[in-house]
Amino acid sequence: MSSAEPFLHPQAMCESNSVGAGTRIWAFAHVLPGAKIGSSCNICDHVFIENDVVVGDDVTVKCGVQLWDGLRIGNGVFIGPNATFTNDRFPRSKQYPDQFLTTTLEDGASIGANATILPGLRIGAGAMVGAGAVVTRDVPPNAVVVGNPAVIVSYRDSSGVEPLKAPERCSTNPDDVGVRQKLGVGSCWIERLPNFEDMRGSLAVLEHGKGLPFVPKRVFWVFNVPTRDVRGEHAHHKCEQFLVAAHGALSVVLDDGVTREEVRLDSPTLGLYLAPMVWGIQYKFERDAVLMIAASEPYDGSDYIRDYAQFRHLVADQQ
Amino acid sequence: MSSAEPFLHPQAMCESNSVGAGTRIWAFAHVLPGAKIGSSCNICDHVFIENDVVVGDDVTVKCGVQLWDGLRIGNGVFIGPNATFTNDRFPRSKQYPDQFLTTTLEDGASIGANATILPGLRIGAGAMVGAGAVVTRDVPPNAVVVGNPAVIVSYRDSSGVEPLKAPERCSTNPDDVGVRQKLGVGSCWIERLPNFEDMRGSLAVLEHGKGLPFVPKRVFWVFNVPTRDVRGEHAHHKCEQFLVAAHGALSVVLDDGVTREEVRLDSPTLGLYLAPMVWGIQYKFERDAVLMIAASEPYDGSDYIRDYAQFRHLVADQQ
Amino acid sequence: MSSAEPFLHPQAMCESNSVGAGTRIWAFAHVLPGAKIGSSCNICDHVFIENDVVVGDDVTVKCGVQLWDGLRIGNGVFIGPNATFTNDRFPRSKQYPDQFLTTTLEDGASIGANATILPGLRIGAGAMVGAGAVVTRDVPPNAVVVGNPAVIVSYRDSSGVEPLKAPERCSTNPDDVGVRQKLGVGSCWIERLPNFEDMRGSLAVLEHGKGLPFVPKRVFWVFNVPTRDVRGEHAHHKCEQFLVAAHGALSVVLDDGVTREEVRLDSPTLGLYLAPMVWGIQYKFERDAVLMIAASEPYDGSDYIRDYAQFRHLVADQQ
Amino acid sequence: MSSAEPFLHPQAMCESNSVGAGTRIWAFAHVLPGAKIGSSCNICDHVFIENDVVVGDDVTVKCGVQLWDGLRIGNGVFIGPNATFTNDRFPRSKQYPDQFLTTTLEDGASIGANATILPGLRIGAGAMVGAGAVVTRDVPPNAVVVGNPAVIVSYRDSSGVEPLKAPERCSTNPDDVGVRQKLGVGSCWIERLPNFEDMRGSLAVLEHGKGLPFVPKRVFWVFNVPTRDVRGEHAHHKCEQFLVAAHGALSVVLDDGVTREEVRLDSPTLGLYLAPMVWGIQYKFERDAVLMIAASEPYDGSDYIRDYAQFRHLVADQQ
Amino acid sequence: MSSAEPFLHPQAMCESNSVGAGTRIWAFAHVLPGAKIGSSCNICDHVFIENDVVVGDDVTVKCGVQLWDGLRIGNGVFIGPNATFTNDRFPRSKQYPDQFLTTTLEDGASIGANATILPGLRIGAGAMVGAGAVVTRDVPPNAVVVGNPAVIVSYRDSSGVEPLKAPERCSTNPDDVGVRQKLGVGSCWIERLPNFEDMRGSLAVLEHGKGLPFVPKRVFWVFNVPTRDVRGEHAHHKCEQFLVAAHGALSVVLDDGVTREEVRLDSPTLGLYLAPMVWGIQYKFERDAVLMIAASEPYDGSDYIRDYAQFRHLVADQQ
Amino acid sequence: MSSAEPFLHPQAMCESNSVGAGTRIWAFAHVLPGAKIGSSCNICDHVFIENDVVVGDDVTVKCGVQLWDGLRIGNGVFIGPNATFTNDRFPRSKQYPDQFLTTTLEDGASIGANATILPGLRIGAGAMVGAGAVVTRDVPPNAVVVGNPAVIVSYRDSSGVEPLKAPERCSTNPDDVGVRQKLGVGSCWIERLPNFEDMRGSLAVLEHGKGLPFVPKRVFWVFNVPTRDVRGEHAHHKCEQFLVAAHGALSVVLDDGVTREEVRLDSPTLGLYLAPMVWGIQYKFERDAVLMIAASEPYDGSDYIRDYAQFRHLVADQQ
Repeated sequence: MSSAEPFLHPQAMCESNSVGAGTRIWAFAHVLPGAKIGSSCNICDHVFIENDVVVGDDVTVKCGVQLWDGLRIGNGVFIGPNATFTNDRFPRSKQYPDQFLTTTLEDGASIGANATILPGLRIGAGAMVGAGAVVTRDVPPNAVVVGNPAVIVSYRDSSGVEPLKAPERCSTNPDDVGVRQKLGVGSCWIERLPNFEDMRGSLAVLEHGKGLPFVPKRVFWVFNVPTRDVRGEHAHHKCEQFLVAAHGALSVVLDDGVTREEVRLDSPTLGLYLAPMVWGIQYKFERDAVLMIAASEPYDGSDYIRDYAQFRHLVADQQ
Repeated sequence: MSSAEPFLHPQAMCESNSVGAGTRIWAFAHVLPGAKIGSSCNICDHVFIENDVVVGDDVTVKCGVQLWDGLRIGNGVFIGPNATFTNDRFPRSKQYPDQFLTTTLEDGASIGANATILPGLRIGAGAMVGAGAVVTRDVPPNAVVVGNPAVIVSYRDSSGVEPLKAPERCSTNPDDVGVRQKLGVGSCWIERLPNFEDMRGSLAVLEHGKGLPFVPKRVFWVFNVPTRDVRGEHAHHKCEQFLVAAHGALSVVLDDGVTREEVRLDSPTLGLYLAPMVWGIQYKFERDAVLMIAASEPYDGSDYIRDYAQFRHLVADQQ
Repeated sequence: MSSAEPFLHPQAMCESNSVGAGTRIWAFAHVLPGAKIGSSCNICDHVFIENDVVVGDDVTVKCGVQLWDGLRIGNGVFIGPNATFTNDRFPRSKQYPDQFLTTTLEDGASIGANATILPGLRIGAGAMVGAGAVVTRDVPPNAVVVGNPAVIVSYRDSSGVEPLKAPERCSTNPDDVGVRQKLGVGSCWIERLPNFEDMRGSLAVLEHGKGLPFVPKRVFWVFNVPTRDVRGEHAHHKCEQFLVAAHGALSVVLDDGVTREEVRLDSPTLGLYLAPMVWGIQYKFERDAVLMIAASEPYDGSDYIRDYAQFRHLVADQQ
Repeated sequence: MSSAEPFLHPQAMCESNSVGAGTRIWAFAHVLPGAKIGSSCNICDHVFIENDVVVGDDVTVKCGVQLWDGLRIGNGVFIGPNATFTNDRFPRSKQYPDQFLTTTLEDGASIGANATILPGLRIGAGAMVGAGAVVTRDVPPNAVVVGNPAVIVSYRDSSGVEPLKAPERCSTNPDDVGVRQKLGVGSCWIERLPNFEDMRGSLAVLEHGKGLPFVPKRVFWVFNVPTRDVRGEHAHHKCEQFLVAAHGALSVVLDDGVTREEVRLDSPTLGLYLAPMVWGIQYKFERDAVLMIAASEPYDGSDYIRDYAQFRHLVADQQ
Repeated sequence: MSSAEPFLHPQAMCESNSVGAGTRIWAFAHVLPGAKIGSSCNICDHVFIENDVVVGDDVTVKCGVQLWDGLRIGNGVFIGPNATFTNDRFPRSKQYPDQFLTTTLEDGASIGANATILPGLRIGAGAMVGAGAVVTRDVPPNAVVVGNPAVIVSYRDSSGVEPLKAPERCSTNPDDVGVRQKLGVGSCWIERLPNFEDMRGSLAVLEHGKGLPFVPKRVFWVFNVPTRDVRGEHAHHKCEQFLVAAHGALSVVLDDGVTREEVRLDSPTLGLYLAPMVWGIQYKFERDAVLMIAASEPYDGSDYIRDYAQFRHLVADQQ
Repeated sequence: MSSAEPFLHPQAMCESNSVGAGTRIWAFAHVLPGAKIGSSCNICDHVFIENDVVVGDDVTVKCGVQLWDGLRIGNGVFIGPNATFTNDRFPRSKQYPDQFLTTTLEDGASIGANATILPGLRIGAGAMVGAGAVVTRDVPPNAVVVGNPAVIVSYRDSSGVEPLKAPERCSTNPDDVGVRQKLGVGSCWIERLPNFEDMRGSLAVLEHGKGLPFVPKRVFWVFNVPTRDVRGEHAHHKCEQFLVAAHGALSVVLDDGVTREEVRLDSPTLGLYLAPMVWGIQYKFERDAVLMIAASEPYDGSDYIRDYAQFRHLVADQQ
């Protein structure tokens, strides 16, 4: 798409020889000799790029940004104006750490205008950091974070541009007990569970053959999750799971590599079947939420896929 | 201890011919003709007994008590002074219900001094109503109730006299994961479950072969239990259960027909194995408590023993 | 139904000559000379009646009750067993107040078994004191009170026997804005008010000609009502009112002299039209509830009917 | 006041020879042979008195009361109608404790109508148990208790009849820093303490010579007091104390043997000087209240007067 | 003050011919050809201005700021150093929206240092965005916003420079019922309303002729307002209003075009008369606040003035 | 380390003659004539420095920073990239304050990347402002602040680089009453106080000779401290203090000029002896915390050392 030679504005200072084809470097920008910059990038006015920096292809760096030693930037990354990176957790003048911390921006990530990224973090593929956010922890792939400190407020939708619209689907008709409602992600579904309610309280039940498609070899429950935290972020090769918010509420993002959807588990009688080879994320835990999970298999570490890129490859291979 | 004939104080008025041997009726007491009173009873001063009343053997009725039409009193019952019964829910002068409500006091129950019992209730075997209590609902066997309205505060201990002392046993050492601590009731035990805790919260797990002695055919959870309510009050012929307070806390009373103990489930990592042929009761639910139960069998109505007297007989037969 | 002469059990002690026809006095009861007892009463065993006591006709006094100097009992009153009255707020042995406090039980009131009535109170016509209740304040006509201290939990229904069943009517369809739903009491109705809702909050409106059948000369609002308190207990000759729970919830009892109904105002968009000549009561205020009332007339003390008996007479006259 | 011989109603049954002069026993009352009853008592209809009972002089026992083995009743005690005593904590028919528990009613105590007194308790001199109360713990001298279970709501005022009116005195003018406001009890006073307030919070100070009339040898603070509990109930021979509610609020009753007053400590800047030879009581603690006390002396157990009767004697001796 | 020609620093790059008289452009600043810049502006070092940008007169743009395509900046606007604008809600490298969002800064607005402005917003005339704020919603005229996300904390005072000092006026003497206290804005006043208070709660009243200067044709109430939200932001041609915080508290800003004042409505007995032709704003709603408003006219959309600039013109015309 | 002459990049613009030896000024930076810059500084690309600015020695100013008129910067200060300063609280275009506010950065302070510093503040020696923080108040020496608005989350440890690790020391064994546990800072210690606990609550005590090493001439207590506020920040020449959190919890930082430690006071039975000549800071107050302090001396203003630099000098002199 871009022509063979990089473009340098007359007022730009580029001391590096490692700049890809079609990349443009604009006025008052300054690139030090050691920097490696891919092709078709756009380096805007007043940008400063140090030596130990690697920038992929198709990257946009808006005005007023500095890329410090230790930054590793993938392909297709967007960095908004005045976004600020760091490479020293406790900087003191004239005191230097043995090694600067590495910050990694995976492919397709976007950093919002004037955002601040603390050192040593990984911003996952396709993630989006909101304008003005102060990022203090790793950001998972496709997550959308905002605020100071930044918290995850959503995930990107299947189109990859906008945040997921939390569907209203979770409000199934409470009377439709046992009806499986497909979610369009893998073979996942939600259903309303049988609920026996009287003056002494309520009892909901999960029984193999009646709603539950497997005999649970393992039951576990998750609790004390800080409101801003995220769990899951993995897929299983073959383990099936069934999720219920036994107390409080939380949200689940499901991703089969093609389609991504979000479900709100907000009732102890709402069950979610999470199929194998679906990437699952749980977040937006209410204070005191308890997530109960029945699993079709005993614990087996080798059944977990914890790297999203690997998950995408596996999914692609299966198709 | 009692001789063949009932004793009547000269100032007593007994119009009934159906009074058992050894029963004593004291001054200013008045028994109407239709009343049936067992042997070895003690009917104190100022008691009044109507016609449609049946009193068992070894019953004590202290001063100032009236037994109204519709009362059915078992053996060994104690009724404290000025305790007051009723047989009409909404009494209006000169307006009579078609039939008076029946109140039943099962064997060995005690009614505290000046307590008030609303009509149509069943006070279970061995139950104890505290002095001054106002009882508005059925009282299960062996339960101890106090207050206005009366709530269950305990169950009788194995000796049958005092309330259970809630043992401190539930505070197992959190580090003794997987160690089964016997409770002395049937083959029940408690154990600390494996708990994987990090900054994102905690995860506790129940897995067949690791702590859980059966594959769960059914998982159910109980919630929205009013603080004053009681659940359980049954035993199973063969279903095994494993209980965890997934959120909040509650107490469990276990009774194998001989020994009775109480356990406080107050942590999502504390598990209780409830053996077959053990009568189980859950109560003292904290607001928002969630009790999760894994069961070794699918639901089978015929596996439940819901009558405590029957349970006692079955236990006795097995020994 | 009762014959001309009162009946005295041989063991009864009646020193009064002022006992009405058909009244029966039973064993071990004791009536002092000054007491005045109406006709067709039933005075049961172990009752004690002092001198300065007036009892109406058709009154039932169950066993173990004492009627002390200062008690005034209307017709058709029921007094349950061991119910206890008082006439001295701070009794000390051998110290007597200048005058004993008068307790009044209006026609048709029922006092539950073992209830305690503090001195100087008025128990309104048709009111019902629950068994075991400890009454520390006046009880309005038809109110049902329970507990220690006793609080109003309901009012008698139109049949006069059971408590009102709180109808589910208040859950009008939120979409039926402006539809008047008749309540069957006078010309009262409820309706859902127009509600303009957006992300900045909600706005509900009351406008003459659109829902509101009068121009409000006066608007007032009631707040800080203790949960156990009752307001209203009056009718208006001609003032119309429109009630909304602007915050929180409360219940309204409506009584046109023939029919009595209860409505729960639980939304700032639910309006209640309270017609003239309807006795209105507000109670069961949630903590922090605010009741807003628009009135068709300026304040005029002479428009209030504050005595329920007078209200009943006025209603009867109009028919 | 009473004549030499006790009076017995013809229908009364008195089997005891130990009844004091001027005592009257009324119809259907029954006194067993072992009971000892003082002079000028009034034993009303339907009362029952067992053998191991001691009743002082000038005692009133209203109708429907039973006095059981183990009761010890001082002089001038009032027992309201249907008030009910007990002597076995866990009564079972035909099972008797080795010894019945003793209940003691000290001089001048009043038991309200239909109250229930659990066994083994001491009701202090001059205390008042409200009508319908269920007393489960000892009641200190002069305390007024109500409810089920009974809690202290006040103390008797100096006249000995009515409860103390909580004075509004504690609302000293916050600007009158350092002005000692006499309370009329011993040499006690309250004062507003210097308070240095800015945006970082507030600092209040107690310094010898500036408000504090002694150098504190000891500082202690009281916390985690259950709302229904009472502390203090003692006087000091010579130790002076200065009290501040460092957090929350509580009430203090002061009693110099002649005058009794109550003060609400509801601000960390309100100080109370508690003089020697003043009986002090702290109660009505708000949840989370912290009471800080500076004392003029080191701890010395012999400086405490813990028996109210002894305190009264000491005070009388000093006058 | 400014001379005829714009000033360009030798190190500045200005490619536009549309720069007003007296405007200065400083070192390392870069203006693209399409930009239109008014007169007497100050464009500081390191500023970058794209093509589709319009800047008014007397605008200050401090160092490190970029003005992107789509920005429309009025007269007299101040933009602090490193303040950052945006024009794409979900930026992805190499993906462009059909059209960039327009951000508008009205006359006299100030953007604090290092603030971040999300795309597509309008910053009202005279508004002030605090340093470091992240603005995610429109800012009304004269509002002062701070934080991430930015919320309104105040409005500018009448002088137009500093934020309004919230006057303590709202603490009228509760005893001065009915005294109108002028606010100095139009003919607005506040007054303490009649309040009838007893143990059953409080009743406050608004009656035509007694405090209320009109017969209310309409009553409405506002609720469920998120704490960070603002309501009102309009004036009426002729409708008079009377405001009361029936529950909770909120603040009202009043603006007659010359003077601006703020009042805290923090009591259900504090009323505010809001005159016609006064711009009214309600904000700082406490959680659960309910604002009740009585209006002198039925709803008439044409009576509303919703544009502040138009309001200012109308006021000026009337003077 | 630095050579005699300052280094200027060819693209830098330095108009000042007052630049210290060894200082380097990089590309596109711009220094106005009046600025005074010390030796061995590093002024990075795209920095702008106004006239009335004083910069000490060994200062690092990263890219994209502007130093405005009124800034006073000590030695060894670090200023991160895009950090933004201000000198006008309410900036309006073309309106200038009489004097710009002075912002002071004391020796050794660090300003994190993209932080915003409001005008007129003092950033104490060694303090660290976190990346992205918005500082609205003075920052004490050695404090670490983060967030928008910035709050103190820690203090620097003795090494001067990382934040203090809150030691677990405060969890002394509750049974080790009276054992003094040295803190390694001056002669400070913590100890568990005697605690007398029963069902009526707890009483903890401080008595001279038993734990308390002095007779308290003064007792004061601190309350209503906003969670984000800090108290103390001073040392005493000779006054000894003893601190207890009488309610809630707070943290204390102790600094003897060489060693700095932090203690959490989280129990009313945990006491801290704060020796003379130890700099003490209290912060992280829980809502409703009450800090009680007994002091060995009456108040004496001349005993306070309120300036940290002076404190360091005094300490150095004593060694």
